[in-house]
Amino acid sequence: VRKKEISVEKYVSEIQKGSRVFLSKAITLIESTNPKHKEKANAILKTCLQTPNKSIRIGITGVPGAGKSTFIEAFGTYLTSLGKKVAVLAVDPSSSVTKGSILGDKTRMEELVRNENAFIRPSPSGNSLGGVARKTRESMMLCEAAGYDTILVETVGVGQSETAVHSMVDFFLLLKLAGAGDQLQGIKRGIIEMADTIVINKADGDNIKRAKLARTEFKRALQLYPHKDNGWLPKVTTCSALKNDNIDGVWDIINEYIELSTNNNSFKDRRAEQNKFWLVQTIEEQLKENFYSHPEVAKQLIILTKEVEKGTISPFDAAEQLLSLK
Amino acid sequence: VRKKEISVEKYVSEIQKGSRVFLSKAITLIESTNPKHKEKANAILKTCLQTPNKSIRIGITGVPGAGKSTFIEAFGTYLTSLGKKVAVLAVDPSSSVTKGSILGDKTRMEELVRNENAFIRPSPSGNSLGGVARKTRESMMLCEAAGYDTILVETVGVGQSETAVHSMVDFFLLLKLAGAGDQLQGIKRGIIEMADTIVINKADGDNIKRAKLARTEFKRALQLYPHKDNGWLPKVTTCSALKNDNIDGVWDIINEYIELSTNNNSFKDRRAEQNKFWLVQTIEEQLKENFYSHPEVAKQLIILTKEVEKGTISPFDAAEQLLSLK
Repeated sequence: VRKKEISVEKYVSEIQKGSRVFLSKAITLIESTNPKHKEKANAILKTCLQTPNKSIRIGITGVPGAGKSTFIEAFGTYLTSLGKKVAVLAVDPSSSVTKGSILGDKTRMEELVRNENAFIRPSPSGNSLGGVARKTRESMMLCEAAGYDTILVETVGVGQSETAVHSMVDFFLLLKLAGAGDQLQGIKRGIIEMADTIVINKADGDNIKRAKLARTEFKRALQLYPHKDNGWLPKVTTCSALKNDNIDGVWDIINEYIELSTNNNSFKDRRAEQNKFWLVQTIEEQLKENFYSHPEVAKQLIILTKEVEKGTISPFDAAEQLLSLK
Repeated sequence: VRKKEISVEKYVSEIQKGSRVFLSKAITLIESTNPKHKEKANAILKTCLQTPNKSIRIGITGVPGAGKSTFIEAFGTYLTSLGKKVAVLAVDPSSSVTKGSILGDKTRMEELVRNENAFIRPSPSGNSLGGVARKTRESMMLCEAAGYDTILVETVGVGQSETAVHSMVDFFLLLKLAGAGDQLQGIKRGIIEMADTIVINKADGDNIKRAKLARTEFKRALQLYPHKDNGWLPKVTTCSALKNDNIDGVWDIINEYIELSTNNNSFKDRRAEQNKFWLVQTIEEQLKENFYSHPEVAKQLIILTKEVEKGTISPFDAAEQLLSLK
């Protein structure tokens, strides 16, 4: 007997009632590569988008070892203690089903994973950052329809994925390590510029002094940059996720940001901008995929790229040749 | 009587002999929107690319008022005194024939413009940054074929144009102002990260102290970033283009960079990378142009963008609808 299919309406109504089971199932549809699943996911998403919500989306990045899991465990737990419903998602394009992914190891969030007001979902897998980010962004919207009002989106601060996460959140938090060697501090250029706050974690025990020093240095460095367009001046603070120290202080900064950006309308504007960004992004990614997957283009691209590298043909000339193939 | 057309061979041989007249004429062909001119320009460029050259390409950026023209006048004149042949180009997408452009006002480079070993060309005009940058990059190659061994590419540090210039030069110089208000220091985030050197200009008279202070601050800020991939640690220095002070010091830094990057092969690798970058860039720009210029797409894009902004349709859903139109 063929299993009866669940209707879109059923999905939506269960999600809106806050069913974690249906939320999970719907996210699985979003993550599926099966076109039929995708179609259904789109229909669910479309209806869910009508649900009004007042969520706050927070991106959290930091190099491996900065203590992201511990921080999210402490921060998420604190938020639920304030009555918030917290969804934790991730964008990790390096992950795959076999390799595991960040947030895949739920044992590192022991407390939060058992918390009734928290929903944790590991990063979707995928070959392209765009694809992974898209899935996470869509899942986020389902979480919001299910009543989660605080969305934490985790990413590893080692590649392009922060830019993707930055473009889907209201607030971007950079977690840094205190008292670590320079190699650990060596995060990608440009990430510091995206941060709305820099939180220096592991400010405990012998590390407190070094954490305070780091805070001073980052404050000084940030002063060299102008205010953000919305008038916000990124803040630097310390915390110890392990000792649950100053977790509320981090939340205070986020609230201050939300107040400022709500008052001057930049919160709403940023969301509208992000929606437009994702429209353009999706179109352009698809255009590229259509072009590069063309067999003759793929073949000639290899040949012409070599010539371009050697400088025997102008890149513009090579581009023209390739474009004429399709 | 119809004017006899000059052949591609004639162009190439005259350019290779160092004719400024033919170099200028050929650049005019590159800048033309006439398809026949473009075709001819491509043929000239193709042949000129075969000319081996050992040029150094230096990008120079800074906000209006940082003293770019004065710096280029002093720096270019200094380079010719060392026996160099200097070409000065520009990327300024905001310029147009009517509005004038940076380097358009040659009176600000009085000395250099009369120098036999310098070739100055204002920014090409154009509606898209990609188009303007492409023209400048092609002109640069013709200058190299004409024997110019040091190419200075100027751009205004207020938009995306630095990224375009950064992707066509070997070395990127950021000109900053000493002793100016914060508003003038407020350059775009991310530019500092691209810089191979930060030169604090107008370090003269009453400004010397403030310039030195700025140098210290920038040095400290740069220390927070890791070394560049090629092992280079960006340097900070001061100069006074007006008083011709420490112009040689700037050149020393560039030479140090060239030595390091030649020795570890990153100089060659960066050029090959840039060629590949321009190939991909040109393809993708053309794909987008082809798509967005489609009448039905253009029409629906306006309607769907509004819905996406309001959040009544998912950006992904809207993208799919648009892509199905073509």
